Amino acid sequence: MLSYTDPRKADKMTEECGVFGLYAPGSPVARLTYYGLYALQHRGQESAGIAVADGETITGEKGMGLVADVFPDTGKLDQMKGDLAVGHVRYSTCGASAPVNAQPLVVRYRNGALAIAHNGNLINGRLLRQQLEAEGSIFQTTTDSEIIAHLVARSGEKELTAALKKTLPQLEGAYAFILMTPDQLIGIRDPHGIRPLSLGKTASGYVLASETCAFDLIGAQFLQDLKPGEMVIIDRHGLRFERFAPPAEPAMCIFEFIYFARPDSNLLGKNVHLVRKRMGRRLAREHPVTADLVTGVPDSSLSVASGVAEELGLPLEMGFVKNRYIGRTFIQPSPEMRALGVQLKLNPVRQIVAGKRVVMVDDSIVRGTTSLRIVEMLRKAGAKEVHVLISSPPVIAPCYYGLDISSSSELIAARMSIPEITREIGADSLGFLSEEGLLAAVDLPEEGFCRACFNGCYLVKPPEDREAPNWSGAQKNRRCQSVGLHL
Amino acid sequence: MLSYTDPRKADKMTEECGVFGLYAPGSPVARLTYYGLYALQHRGQESAGIAVADGETITGEKGMGLVADVFPDTGKLDQMKGDLAVGHVRYSTCGASAPVNAQPLVVRYRNGALAIAHNGNLINGRLLRQQLEAEGSIFQTTTDSEIIAHLVARSGEKELTAALKKTLPQLEGAYAFILMTPDQLIGIRDPHGIRPLSLGKTASGYVLASETCAFDLIGAQFLQDLKPGEMVIIDRHGLRFERFAPPAEPAMCIFEFIYFARPDSNLLGKNVHLVRKRMGRRLAREHPVTADLVTGVPDSSLSVASGVAEELGLPLEMGFVKNRYIGRTFIQPSPEMRALGVQLKLNPVRQIVAGKRVVMVDDSIVRGTTSLRIVEMLRKAGAKEVHVLISSPPVIAPCYYGLDISSSSELIAARMSIPEITREIGADSLGFLSEEGLLAAVDLPEEGFCRACFNGCYLVKPPEDREAPNWSGAQKNRRCQSVGLHL
Amino acid sequence: MLSYTDPRKADKMTEECGVFGLYAPGSPVARLTYYGLYALQHRGQESAGIAVADGETITGEKGMGLVADVFPDTGKLDQMKGDLAVGHVRYSTCGASAPVNAQPLVVRYRNGALAIAHNGNLINGRLLRQQLEAEGSIFQTTTDSEIIAHLVARSGEKELTAALKKTLPQLEGAYAFILMTPDQLIGIRDPHGIRPLSLGKTASGYVLASETCAFDLIGAQFLQDLKPGEMVIIDRHGLRFERFAPPAEPAMCIFEFIYFARPDSNLLGKNVHLVRKRMGRRLAREHPVTADLVTGVPDSSLSVASGVAEELGLPLEMGFVKNRYIGRTFIQPSPEMRALGVQLKLNPVRQIVAGKRVVMVDDSIVRGTTSLRIVEMLRKAGAKEVHVLISSPPVIAPCYYGLDISSSSELIAARMSIPEITREIGADSLGFLSEEGLLAAVDLPEEGFCRACFNGCYLVKPPEDREAPNWSGAQKNRRCQSVGLHL
Amino acid sequence: MLSYTDPRKADKMTEECGVFGLYAPGSPVARLTYYGLYALQHRGQESAGIAVADGETITGEKGMGLVADVFPDTGKLDQMKGDLAVGHVRYSTCGASAPVNAQPLVVRYRNGALAIAHNGNLINGRLLRQQLEAEGSIFQTTTDSEIIAHLVARSGEKELTAALKKTLPQLEGAYAFILMTPDQLIGIRDPHGIRPLSLGKTASGYVLASETCAFDLIGAQFLQDLKPGEMVIIDRHGLRFERFAPPAEPAMCIFEFIYFARPDSNLLGKNVHLVRKRMGRRLAREHPVTADLVTGVPDSSLSVASGVAEELGLPLEMGFVKNRYIGRTFIQPSPEMRALGVQLKLNPVRQIVAGKRVVMVDDSIVRGTTSLRIVEMLRKAGAKEVHVLISSPPVIAPCYYGLDISSSSELIAARMSIPEITREIGADSLGFLSEEGLLAAVDLPEEGFCRACFNGCYLVKPPEDREAPNWSGAQKNRRCQSVGLHL
Repeated sequence: MLSYTDPRKADKMTEECGVFGLYAPGSPVARLTYYGLYALQHRGQESAGIAVADGETITGEKGMGLVADVFPDTGKLDQMKGDLAVGHVRYSTCGASAPVNAQPLVVRYRNGALAIAHNGNLINGRLLRQQLEAEGSIFQTTTDSEIIAHLVARSGEKELTAALKKTLPQLEGAYAFILMTPDQLIGIRDPHGIRPLSLGKTASGYVLASETCAFDLIGAQFLQDLKPGEMVIIDRHGLRFERFAPPAEPAMCIFEFIYFARPDSNLLGKNVHLVRKRMGRRLAREHPVTADLVTGVPDSSLSVASGVAEELGLPLEMGFVKNRYIGRTFIQPSPEMRALGVQLKLNPVRQIVAGKRVVMVDDSIVRGTTSLRIVEMLRKAGAKEVHVLISSPPVIAPCYYGLDISSSSELIAARMSIPEITREIGADSLGFLSEEGLLAAVDLPEEGFCRACFNGCYLVKPPEDREAPNWSGAQKNRRCQSVGLHL
Repeated sequence: MLSYTDPRKADKMTEECGVFGLYAPGSPVARLTYYGLYALQHRGQESAGIAVADGETITGEKGMGLVADVFPDTGKLDQMKGDLAVGHVRYSTCGASAPVNAQPLVVRYRNGALAIAHNGNLINGRLLRQQLEAEGSIFQTTTDSEIIAHLVARSGEKELTAALKKTLPQLEGAYAFILMTPDQLIGIRDPHGIRPLSLGKTASGYVLASETCAFDLIGAQFLQDLKPGEMVIIDRHGLRFERFAPPAEPAMCIFEFIYFARPDSNLLGKNVHLVRKRMGRRLAREHPVTADLVTGVPDSSLSVASGVAEELGLPLEMGFVKNRYIGRTFIQPSPEMRALGVQLKLNPVRQIVAGKRVVMVDDSIVRGTTSLRIVEMLRKAGAKEVHVLISSPPVIAPCYYGLDISSSSELIAARMSIPEITREIGADSLGFLSEEGLLAAVDLPEEGFCRACFNGCYLVKPPEDREAPNWSGAQKNRRCQSVGLHL
Repeated sequence: MLSYTDPRKADKMTEECGVFGLYAPGSPVARLTYYGLYALQHRGQESAGIAVADGETITGEKGMGLVADVFPDTGKLDQMKGDLAVGHVRYSTCGASAPVNAQPLVVRYRNGALAIAHNGNLINGRLLRQQLEAEGSIFQTTTDSEIIAHLVARSGEKELTAALKKTLPQLEGAYAFILMTPDQLIGIRDPHGIRPLSLGKTASGYVLASETCAFDLIGAQFLQDLKPGEMVIIDRHGLRFERFAPPAEPAMCIFEFIYFARPDSNLLGKNVHLVRKRMGRRLAREHPVTADLVTGVPDSSLSVASGVAEELGLPLEMGFVKNRYIGRTFIQPSPEMRALGVQLKLNPVRQIVAGKRVVMVDDSIVRGTTSLRIVEMLRKAGAKEVHVLISSPPVIAPCYYGLDISSSSELIAARMSIPEITREIGADSLGFLSEEGLLAAVDLPEEGFCRACFNGCYLVKPPEDREAPNWSGAQKNRRCQSVGLHL
Repeated sequence: MLSYTDPRKADKMTEECGVFGLYAPGSPVARLTYYGLYALQHRGQESAGIAVADGETITGEKGMGLVADVFPDTGKLDQMKGDLAVGHVRYSTCGASAPVNAQPLVVRYRNGALAIAHNGNLINGRLLRQQLEAEGSIFQTTTDSEIIAHLVARSGEKELTAALKKTLPQLEGAYAFILMTPDQLIGIRDPHGIRPLSLGKTASGYVLASETCAFDLIGAQFLQDLKPGEMVIIDRHGLRFERFAPPAEPAMCIFEFIYFARPDSNLLGKNVHLVRKRMGRRLAREHPVTADLVTGVPDSSLSVASGVAEELGLPLEMGFVKNRYIGRTFIQPSPEMRALGVQLKLNPVRQIVAGKRVVMVDDSIVRGTTSLRIVEMLRKAGAKEVHVLISSPPVIAPCYYGLDISSSSELIAARMSIPEITREIGADSLGFLSEEGLLAAVDLPEEGFCRACFNGCYLVKPPEDREAPNWSGAQKNRRCQSVGLHL
């Protein structure tokens, strides 16, 4: 399974999963869900699954790998007949990378069958799990979906929406759920709207997806983003919206704009590529550099790099080429191979960078190891100077919604000053986009965003068993006043 | 197997294959060849194979699919021990798409074992095959490699190089061969140098590859391109160059620059990305357009598009996003799906193009169907105007070295004038790069290139059973004088 | 998956599953379990799984197909390190044939991790499931293992054995469970001992298995059969036996002797082959036939046939050959193929049967379709007479412990008299072994056996939603007096 | 691939392959060939392949593994449309176990396409190969089929049958070929008829197969065995027989009766099971033993064992059970596992043999290692005495037609006397069937058989580079007079 894991990912924010739901009687819902998941594949390559409902039963199929690996031919898909479907692609956030954790989770409970797909991470997941176990629940997976299934089943409510209204307020953290009964599709977004979830319209029904690019692929029209704290119920009576929590401070994860989302998706009505390009322009204005050319680390930083190049009036060049042909399982080079100089995914282009002062644009620095390696590559390829521009502020605090860094000590920017980082990664200069610059580029003044990883100001009190960021309350206080969040 | 085939390919020049050879006693040659082929994977995704030699025997393994599919784990690779290796990735040019046509071809003949990997297409292949059959030869594949194997075996020469010198002059067409005996590696490039073949140096030996990007991946140093009509013999005595044909007019296929090669490769010492960017600048100067933004069709046209954008002073935007997650087998949408609006690989970005005057850059127009589809996509996504710029001249004549178009009547530019094509594909304007502009961008005034597909002036008389281009001798005469080639 | 299903199975008793457990610190427990399951493969070919425990955690792997398909190489097995293991092979009894129903089931509950493997069928499974759902439980599978997991988790007991003692009395039906905690292995057999479960000793520990043939394969020594209503706890303190139910009337399913068990296994201390051979001798004595030769339907009836042949003093011949080369997926002949005469598994041998009076021995007649087909085959191959001897009494009543016949109307012997059946299947004569003869052959006068399928006398009241056998209470009364069971 | 190899095979005669050909316009020839190969699967499990012809072209598909593995679904088969087909299953005799050696071989030569399937082994294969290489031929495989293809292509004859008549006399050794042109099927059997090949009739055409059991499976009628030195040509004009060699001494390999063929096949009109049973009767008469029971090593010796039991008046018991569930790849026990007592395929049945005097029947002793292991197993299981009866004479000389024993020193019976072997394998007594007894059991007094492995009297002079059996000419002389063969 490692084969699908971009080695750079280990040094990236990785809170990702993709969810997709479709209510479209008369359409080939399993096939359309397959295509929808294909559009969301960048959000998770570890496992994939689809469940369909035909008014009476739910049948599902899931497995490890890309959606194309789990459904290698039309056989399984075409047997999955129904009027509605839900799909999931997974990048392991919490929960081991195991077949059993593939989603959608399909369960039976007192009110019948239920399928659940989830993107997010509950902060109080461990606590809820302990409470449920204490009450006699058994767990077969380590997913948050199983927690919600138990809560719904134990709610005592006969109506699913009633059960959800009783249950959801117990959850703390980031979540976007799609639930499916034999005849109903329900979309849910947490009260802060940390994870995205959009609603669209197809020829014969409605569609829910983590990102709008999935609508484009299947020819659906975007209707609206789900409101934080709201659920949408889709069935033969059409659409119905219900609120399960009072309006909370909106706080979508800003890393969706920086890194997670596909450039052709729209978040909060803004096209991601265009936002990233504005980040690039702003970044260049904040950190003007004298250089010969600009290059971005593919693929995530190409939009930003074009903004940087335009602002600096420098040529945008292809400083790296990324190899895209990854089969089902790719044999990683052994250490001996790496010592021989084998470098798999990224190839710096000597003729382009040799003798040049290069502006290298990337989206973030987490541990710093990737930046170090890329600067090194450029030097080896002959770059005279390497100026690093990063389209996000320094990441100084852990993310409790999914980043797989458990301690802030792993974060280079929590340990070092910017000049120290510059030396550490071997750059001639280093510039981070400011929080203000970032927000200006996003250009949604009315919206709030979770930027806890930049400023340690958490929306929700972190769980007690998780390490608290290592700065004093005073510091936090000062930092967080502007955002008005938990200290 | 269709899954690996970019649907756009059907409307593209497709003369491609990748060859790789390594002489490096003491190194894990099979593994390094695996990585070399991975770097060349863009040249062919139909089948892959590796053969290794250990001084006494040759053992090989090949199959359908990506190199990662044929060698899914280290098992097979690690059993292939030796001092030298040869590898191949195949895009079917001539010869059916069948397992038996995977290469390298490994044969035994009077002088022992021999492995052959080939990139190219022989014009007189059918004739040679008929002659060999008449003399009692049997054929198990439809590859040109099998023809050369028969010729070598029948040459009566005891020495392989002597046999090659006797044999190669019989071949007409485009070819780059890598041959391997149990202890020797031989690289061969046709007298016109139509297909590329480069020589590099590793820590412990030498390497041959279709493109220099394969050197980069395994940490090898470029030494030189093989000279047309020359062979290089690599063995324990080091390197030895021998000429098998008198110097002919150099005529590398110019489509290597336009489309085939990876942007990080160097051809004739020129970086492909930079050449393409110059094509873009030149194209913009030849066809200045008033517009709001420039976008390229990914991935091949992004370099050109950045040149166009810089020259026009317009922003370069991501007008399309290409989905890269293709598993082993991807289920193509049915016609019903397509009717529903499912579009798989390319997604036009509405927020970027809507209401805008868009310059859409692509590399070539062959049948015209792709251009039509892409222009349509942009219109649907709301583009106000679509101006198409093509980084090659109109393709008006068949290519006998591999383009899978058997008749010039399939070529839109052979049937229609430029205004007619413009209407046909629904563009507001259409500009092709001139031959002069193309050559200027390549910037190798001393070199000649095969541009027969643009001007019908063939280096080698086309085979009689192939349709002759449908213009009069006079026309040809006029067109070809400047290039001094066969009329 | 159909490929693994013997087409004859559809006309056979099919209550089967195989369970295996091993406590052997220091031994390669996953590998030994793999071999143990391989020995039990005849009990289920639908899915296979293994879970191991290392004192702290439980990790498992399972999938559809033969054990060799689920663990195709040593990779997965060798990663599963531990001191104890539990394995399962499944033939779907209740619960759909779906990956999710593969066992062992691994769950987490308040007292930690638990793995469960089950052979059997609960009569009150549906009821328990409804009760649990009403109390807020969710179900992810349709296995009985999940029911027991819920009951244990909800028992409120801190100690697993205490929880089991509280839980097991709620179960009605046939069951043999192996449970595994991170450091303990527990074997359980229902109060009537309907399903077999044996205990053995290895060099470094203990082993539990559905049949003793699994002990032979891994070189373990048989210790004893588990007593009905008893559980054995195996951990670092050694063996401990505990009773969870008062002694009930012993009633092992007699079909284990007739058909399910492998001939080299011992049940209740009796070798199955020898018992079957005695059945054959007895059958021949009850139904002496004048004929030329005896033949058995492979493989299950060969032991019986040799007893018949010896008793009748007739030669035992190979009247049928069974093809054993079944790959992962075998393409079944289409109806057209069958019409052309394609017959896949069994080939009658013309030279042996042509012109002969043949005694054809089989183990049971359920629907009668198989017998019809086999008699037909023999006739076509030229048999002059076909005398059918069946080593079990007529099956006249449904089995609520697993036979996949929901209604007694599907049972030919419930609808027809023996002369009618003889005509229906086209035999010249037909003899069934009597219940007395069967018991005499088993030769365990002290033991009781469940023979409800022969006499309608059920140990446990059948569930109300299941059809009651269609004969009058008086009949039942008379039939069941001798066995003293529920009427 | 080892998985398919019965470990006992390494100690068995292994000259096997299965060929199948069908001329049946209007029938699903690829599917029927699939079933035909399935019936012949016991003759080879290493690779399988099918080629079909439709009057104009030949298309084929082949691969490693069982026929069910190579054609896992109907996809490939249903694409292979045509009027005639040829199929092959391979057990590697000469030629490495490699995909490239899978058959049928499909070639193109001056007269068009040709497919070849072969069962046999040419004694002068190496010589022919050298001659062909010297004349400029290349070889891509190490099969004899490629040799015959070259010879046919070089014959200069326009007509295939003429080419074959010119070519076949050059071959020395054992062969049964099926050739297929686009519209013709040709069956060929060597002048001594060493390998079997039978002709049958289907509803719409004709069929050729190595064994008659393939006819039974597809519902075809046996017509006749091909005569040695004869070819049959099947096309739209019907059947035509032609002789390509003068009548030679008939000498079918007698091991077909002893071990290779399926018991339900007929060879030379005799049913194999009945012949084997007569061998058993004869064996018992030649070596009367006082014992308690008779048991055969499954599956090959069960027929013989029943004859022995009847003759001795002893019960026939199931002394061993063989596990038949072998998946695609089965993990062999490591030496440590074996030391722990893991024994995979054969399980001796303690309750049957313990305390008993056992007659153990097997078909042959080659190296002796298997017999040693089996006697040991029986002793461990408690057998009081083990008397070994072998249904063939001692194997004292190498077989140049395929046995994979290169030196007679590997043959236990060439090194030791019978009393010595008895001690070596640990038996209480040991009896071999005499040559006379064997021939009497076969009961074809007019036929000759190759028994060179028993007496060193070869039909054809062994190749000079192969070791000559190590006894004096005088010995040979004496032995061979009775059979009148080459000394």
